[in-house]
Amino acid sequence: MSNLSGLTESIYSDDAILSLFSGAATLGQMLAVEAALARAQAQCGVIPPSAATAINEVCRVGEIRGVLDVDGIARAAVAAGNIAIPFVKQLTAAVARVDTEAARYVHWGATSQDILDTALVLQMLQVAARLDAGLERASLACARLTRAHRDTIMVGRTWLQHALPTTFGAKTAGWLEALERSRLRVRQDTSQMALLQFGGAAGTLASLGPSANDVVQALAAELGLGAAAMPWHTHRDRLASLAASLGVLTGTMGKIARDLSLMAQSEVGEVSEPSGPGRGGSSTMPHKRNPVGCAAILAAAIRVPPLVSTMLSGMIQEHERALGGWQAEWDVLPQIAALTGGALRHLTGVLDGLEVYPERMAQNLALTDGLILGEAYMLALGTRLGRLPAHALVERASRDAVANKRSLRDAVRAALESDAATRGLLSDDDLDRLGDPANYVGEAPAICDRVLAAWKASRNGGNAA
Amino acid sequence: MSNLSGLTESIYSDDAILSLFSGAATLGQMLAVEAALARAQAQCGVIPPSAATAINEVCRVGEIRGVLDVDGIARAAVAAGNIAIPFVKQLTAAVARVDTEAARYVHWGATSQDILDTALVLQMLQVAARLDAGLERASLACARLTRAHRDTIMVGRTWLQHALPTTFGAKTAGWLEALERSRLRVRQDTSQMALLQFGGAAGTLASLGPSANDVVQALAAELGLGAAAMPWHTHRDRLASLAASLGVLTGTMGKIARDLSLMAQSEVGEVSEPSGPGRGGSSTMPHKRNPVGCAAILAAAIRVPPLVSTMLSGMIQEHERALGGWQAEWDVLPQIAALTGGALRHLTGVLDGLEVYPERMAQNLALTDGLILGEAYMLALGTRLGRLPAHALVERASRDAVANKRSLRDAVRAALESDAATRGLLSDDDLDRLGDPANYVGEAPAICDRVLAAWKASRNGGNAA
Amino acid sequence: MSNLSGLTESIYSDDAILSLFSGAATLGQMLAVEAALARAQAQCGVIPPSAATAINEVCRVGEIRGVLDVDGIARAAVAAGNIAIPFVKQLTAAVARVDTEAARYVHWGATSQDILDTALVLQMLQVAARLDAGLERASLACARLTRAHRDTIMVGRTWLQHALPTTFGAKTAGWLEALERSRLRVRQDTSQMALLQFGGAAGTLASLGPSANDVVQALAAELGLGAAAMPWHTHRDRLASLAASLGVLTGTMGKIARDLSLMAQSEVGEVSEPSGPGRGGSSTMPHKRNPVGCAAILAAAIRVPPLVSTMLSGMIQEHERALGGWQAEWDVLPQIAALTGGALRHLTGVLDGLEVYPERMAQNLALTDGLILGEAYMLALGTRLGRLPAHALVERASRDAVANKRSLRDAVRAALESDAATRGLLSDDDLDRLGDPANYVGEAPAICDRVLAAWKASRNGGNAA
Amino acid sequence: MSNLSGLTESIYSDDAILSLFSGAATLGQMLAVEAALARAQAQCGVIPPSAATAINEVCRVGEIRGVLDVDGIARAAVAAGNIAIPFVKQLTAAVARVDTEAARYVHWGATSQDILDTALVLQMLQVAARLDAGLERASLACARLTRAHRDTIMVGRTWLQHALPTTFGAKTAGWLEALERSRLRVRQDTSQMALLQFGGAAGTLASLGPSANDVVQALAAELGLGAAAMPWHTHRDRLASLAASLGVLTGTMGKIARDLSLMAQSEVGEVSEPSGPGRGGSSTMPHKRNPVGCAAILAAAIRVPPLVSTMLSGMIQEHERALGGWQAEWDVLPQIAALTGGALRHLTGVLDGLEVYPERMAQNLALTDGLILGEAYMLALGTRLGRLPAHALVERASRDAVANKRSLRDAVRAALESDAATRGLLSDDDLDRLGDPANYVGEAPAICDRVLAAWKASRNGGNAA
Repeated sequence: MSNLSGLTESIYSDDAILSLFSGAATLGQMLAVEAALARAQAQCGVIPPSAATAINEVCRVGEIRGVLDVDGIARAAVAAGNIAIPFVKQLTAAVARVDTEAARYVHWGATSQDILDTALVLQMLQVAARLDAGLERASLACARLTRAHRDTIMVGRTWLQHALPTTFGAKTAGWLEALERSRLRVRQDTSQMALLQFGGAAGTLASLGPSANDVVQALAAELGLGAAAMPWHTHRDRLASLAASLGVLTGTMGKIARDLSLMAQSEVGEVSEPSGPGRGGSSTMPHKRNPVGCAAILAAAIRVPPLVSTMLSGMIQEHERALGGWQAEWDVLPQIAALTGGALRHLTGVLDGLEVYPERMAQNLALTDGLILGEAYMLALGTRLGRLPAHALVERASRDAVANKRSLRDAVRAALESDAATRGLLSDDDLDRLGDPANYVGEAPAICDRVLAAWKASRNGGNAA
Repeated sequence: MSNLSGLTESIYSDDAILSLFSGAATLGQMLAVEAALARAQAQCGVIPPSAATAINEVCRVGEIRGVLDVDGIARAAVAAGNIAIPFVKQLTAAVARVDTEAARYVHWGATSQDILDTALVLQMLQVAARLDAGLERASLACARLTRAHRDTIMVGRTWLQHALPTTFGAKTAGWLEALERSRLRVRQDTSQMALLQFGGAAGTLASLGPSANDVVQALAAELGLGAAAMPWHTHRDRLASLAASLGVLTGTMGKIARDLSLMAQSEVGEVSEPSGPGRGGSSTMPHKRNPVGCAAILAAAIRVPPLVSTMLSGMIQEHERALGGWQAEWDVLPQIAALTGGALRHLTGVLDGLEVYPERMAQNLALTDGLILGEAYMLALGTRLGRLPAHALVERASRDAVANKRSLRDAVRAALESDAATRGLLSDDDLDRLGDPANYVGEAPAICDRVLAAWKASRNGGNAA
Repeated sequence: MSNLSGLTESIYSDDAILSLFSGAATLGQMLAVEAALARAQAQCGVIPPSAATAINEVCRVGEIRGVLDVDGIARAAVAAGNIAIPFVKQLTAAVARVDTEAARYVHWGATSQDILDTALVLQMLQVAARLDAGLERASLACARLTRAHRDTIMVGRTWLQHALPTTFGAKTAGWLEALERSRLRVRQDTSQMALLQFGGAAGTLASLGPSANDVVQALAAELGLGAAAMPWHTHRDRLASLAASLGVLTGTMGKIARDLSLMAQSEVGEVSEPSGPGRGGSSTMPHKRNPVGCAAILAAAIRVPPLVSTMLSGMIQEHERALGGWQAEWDVLPQIAALTGGALRHLTGVLDGLEVYPERMAQNLALTDGLILGEAYMLALGTRLGRLPAHALVERASRDAVANKRSLRDAVRAALESDAATRGLLSDDDLDRLGDPANYVGEAPAICDRVLAAWKASRNGGNAA
Repeated sequence: MSNLSGLTESIYSDDAILSLFSGAATLGQMLAVEAALARAQAQCGVIPPSAATAINEVCRVGEIRGVLDVDGIARAAVAAGNIAIPFVKQLTAAVARVDTEAARYVHWGATSQDILDTALVLQMLQVAARLDAGLERASLACARLTRAHRDTIMVGRTWLQHALPTTFGAKTAGWLEALERSRLRVRQDTSQMALLQFGGAAGTLASLGPSANDVVQALAAELGLGAAAMPWHTHRDRLASLAASLGVLTGTMGKIARDLSLMAQSEVGEVSEPSGPGRGGSSTMPHKRNPVGCAAILAAAIRVPPLVSTMLSGMIQEHERALGGWQAEWDVLPQIAALTGGALRHLTGVLDGLEVYPERMAQNLALTDGLILGEAYMLALGTRLGRLPAHALVERASRDAVANKRSLRDAVRAALESDAATRGLLSDDDLDRLGDPANYVGEAPAICDRVLAAWKASRNGGNAA
């Protein structure tokens, strides 16, 4: 590996996705496309069957050794402007070593971008399968957490301040739903992108004469891809849309990682990332468990959005082949894929082994000594006192609680007692019940149930349909 | 209008969309949401019917005069941190002026973000309808151009260099297809986003007790929106996905505008934007027709992608209410909508009145004196001479044509004549036929037919289904 | 105000900067440029003095009433492609009403972009002055905090986990330094940008003949701007660089706001934003003080970077006048300025009234019962025991402290006592001293002193030099 | 190389810069920092001289073989969260193999980020030197072109339309100036960034006791870096500012590449990129010379701005060590450097060998048959007829020229002749002179002279001062 990326990319990227885009893997896919092209053209009578046989013998996927010189292609690409030109030269020479006549039919009727784009589509299909599997695992983890913590009370926070009680399950239910939505988006965008690119130099396939469309259909079938109504050399919306959906997925993962890392703060301590050898710990600081998985996810969530911006900006592509915009995509879409995959790998690791501390959640909930339950008291008193007097009384009690460092329960009790008109309005049992946040989580458990039910239904029904 | 935007935004933005997001329109939608909330809560027995009636009397959509002080809200929002807080205060006061008791039920159980998000969803639905209508008009124009120029021969250009002949219809067919794909994406993303936001301070609706879900369903029904399984205060993927689809659409429009502006260059002269009073012309430079529509579209295509990046970055939202990420969306999504709409308005204007000059297309095609047809000669000679000798002969002829400034046709003829073995291999008629680019446009007309057929089918079948 | 921006922009933007870019203010600056142009040309004998007089009478800055119809300019700009074309038309008509002959000399030799760019430069100079004043105030606040909290001990946090003690002053010293660096960058970038734009249609000023350069010099002098060696219509690096420096400044403010908002969390409670009427509080939740200033700053820090990206992408400008890139700048640079100014306004407000709670800092520091001081014990024991045994002992004690919920001090004491070889190695006084984080803040106070000294020196020496 | 980047990155990136950031080079710099740290600490009496000697023996820069296992570091970094943790472990083990006691002093008092950041600073200094050399070469090429084409007349284009004559030298003078400005910016930003990072875990260097500042000074001196007043772990403005300046430079290169690629279009033909083996040509399309250098530059100009946005967004860094923002920088700054360097390498290649076709420039200038010289006729007639009648006459003549396809010269002549009052007002010589664009290039040659003079002066005076 030649760059810093090489050293640090394994931290943030998914290795399996990186290897789908390795030089060898990319050239391997290009060989697969050239081989399929020869077969399709032989089927349609455009090139001799013997040529197709010879080309296919040389183009065995993954067997680039002896056929291609990867470094030589990288070097020649600088002057040629893309890797397909030296690739085709080398492939032609390799075929010529086997069958001179067949060599004339290598890459027949195709343009560089036909091969590069089709290979990219095949790679992105593999990326999508990998992400789908990761999302399955992440969703399972969220579902498990949602079931387990349906009633685990914790504080709901707005503006990073305590607001009202909720349950941890309601939080993870939100994560589950959002991940599932992204999964569906990625599936849809993958499926609309799964198309052959084949148009020749100007998108007209003129050199194939009347056989052009037959070859398109046969080639698409050979590769298991759809056949578009026309080439899409300079219409990149399908790729850009998939990139954007990966960006949305990464944003959702960033939200989850932000939540987790805030909950893992020393002062909050509600969760911690799984521990493990060499994992964010310190022998002399056993209190410290660095949320390294969250850091990687957050870094991806910072890096991917501008890369999506690049994909969108790059869509301004000239005429029948672009000058700049297409080239800008080459490394960027793989980076988006690898960063998204890397974040997902970290997310599944974190969620699978997440340590949850319900007792700390309860302690944090108690930090304001009941102040966050003012609404509950107001509602209870409202039915007895009328809304306005109830509101005024709780407001007064809240100020009293803060000023005199007592619980809101006691402050409300004192307020009620201080006036004959309200004395005894709430019994101590009433006060205890109102002061228990478990009685004020509203829809949180029902949310868990609804989200889990919908998730199960989608799995049974098959949300890929 | 208070800013430079105010003066220049009409150039680049869609006025109708801007006015959907005007202060008055926004507050009007917020009033509509509060009114519907009161009705829904009265239906569910959560608030007294009389309160709902009073609130609805005050909240007549669009009738903010006398109820709200827009400038006061803008001022108070600076300290409050959002516009909903002073809005609710003013609304409550306005209701109180009518019915003191009813005033207590204004905004019952809701949080600021419930109102802001639901109002935004309602606004974005209007945006989507406006864009859909614009896309209909743009598609119609592209379809018309595709039909009219199915056989209008022009040069296909790669890397801004002449490559092979194609037809103008094939180019506009690509535009049509891409616009239609974006239309579908925007429709899908709009439909998945058309959801009520209602969760109260921490997303639990605890203050509504067991009626919570009934109110959610009733409120969604009142507003014609879907009811999500849970609030989505800090899960912004649906909005981000819609923003991204607008970004993809703008990218496609940028591609079209780049093509058009390159074709409109003084040296190319294949199209020009429609003329009109005050429109990019110059009394003393009658030769000059500035492509002002394309400039606006290209500016939008430069500006929107980074704004999509903002929407994606902003997705990292904390806990139950975000600190920064949510607030970052407020102006950005409307800007994306207005810029996309503005670009679309310019695009429809340009396409509807586009002046096309087929004779200049033909002249440009002739610029290389037939060199771009080398492939055609090679194919014709290949069947007679074998591929290798045919290739060598055309290569030689091409160099000869450039060196001696003659047409490739004449150079090929001379090459054939210079050798007894090839003399007369192609008749003058053959040479003329091969030298006519009209005979080498391949699939271009068929592409037009296919794309138009698919477009018609989608219209009949209804791609909104 | 016509857009949502209009309603919410005052939350996030600086009103004073917004008003510098209002339609009226922009047109006012354009009038000032046209007036100066006429004066300069009269001085150089290019136009009659009487024409200059008439033009100057009409172009009184800020007096656009009666001269210009702002809405009409906005409308006409849509077809014209920029606001200068209808502006010049209206100005010419206004001058013609006073002096027909003079009207012929309006905008003499200039192109639209000359006026728009020069007016923008004048506006950005005002922006820079406003920001400089804001930075002065923010720096003063940071300096005050640094002085006051030089020795206020708090925990240093890495990866959102407790690491080692530091002082609050060291943190604010970092803020002070970074703000001062940005101030210097903005000054430098402002000064290199303070240039006249004047080149005529193609940058050659051909219509001015041999007087061209004299007019350039005179006009620059009239406006108090520098005269570049040549027009910079399509070289936007100076503006982009200033935009980037505003982006860097906003990033620094984002860092400060992130720190503050984390410190203001309910569970941390080390600072809170100043309170005030209508300011992020809640009558029924007196414990809650929403960090609304930080939210606005963070939103700006999310929004500005992509806008800087737009400025950089927009630099790809064609030939002598761009098609898209220039137009993309129009609203974006003012937005960057207004968002940066808005964040700065919030920052100064927050810092000026920041409430700091040293006792909570001390409590948080104690949360790990001394674990974060392991390094101090190791160093002390290392000199007595050798480094390796010291390290092993503290590691063992740390695990003991966590497992048995006792302080590290006690665990170290127990470990020492458990072995005759180490018994009494540290006296109770030693242990107390080592267990006091105040004795382990290292360079923190010295950092405060150094940073304050450098800041004072730069103020005396004048860091504008 | 493991990724697609690996294969295509050599097209767009600078190999020399990539190799500065290779895994081996990065670890080599980290070794250099650790070695210098040991030396500095020995000098200050913090660690034993023998330990420093042993550590320095192991840490020979570039000699990572036998000391470090690069792949093992990459793997361990995934769990550790950064490469410095496993690096220090391996280094410590390597030192221990030589000298057990010395191993205890490896990385003494330092934190991971101290080493990573300081190594990065050293790498960026090398990047800056490489870029400076490239800019020198690019400027020399622009200066040469400016001198050579001071008077080479061509058309000035606005909105991609013909506007007025200029000279090619004036265009290249603009490029020269902008490149020189960027050079200065990069120098300044490099110089302010050339600082040691050394603060220990929380930035206080507490473990070094009173020697802390001495070590800082000594270490900075060892490495030839400045010593900041305090650590800058979470203040990244200096790096972000350098990144932004690289972005501005790339924007300028993008502008140049856009100009060149437009001029190289088949229909324009005013320049072409240097030819060469395997360089964008086609044996069968000898007319086609793909501007592959411009494509690479434009791709960089599309990719770098969003990466700058990432650097700015990443500045929001928490407390004393960030969670996400810092990690986001790791691959991004090297990418910005490599893309900028790659674009510069292509630019120097293109400019050094640029083929310029003055005759095509002249032909293009003649395309409008003199219409672009209307302004010249108007000025000439204005002094004789008065401005208003002159304007009317030329406007009429322009319309006549377009309608009747004659030259503006002839149309003006006809207009003058048609009226006794104007007959003979301009002689045929006058008309010829006015119709010669060489007489209407205004300041263009003077611009060349001024820019070249300033460039020479800056070189003599030393613009690094």
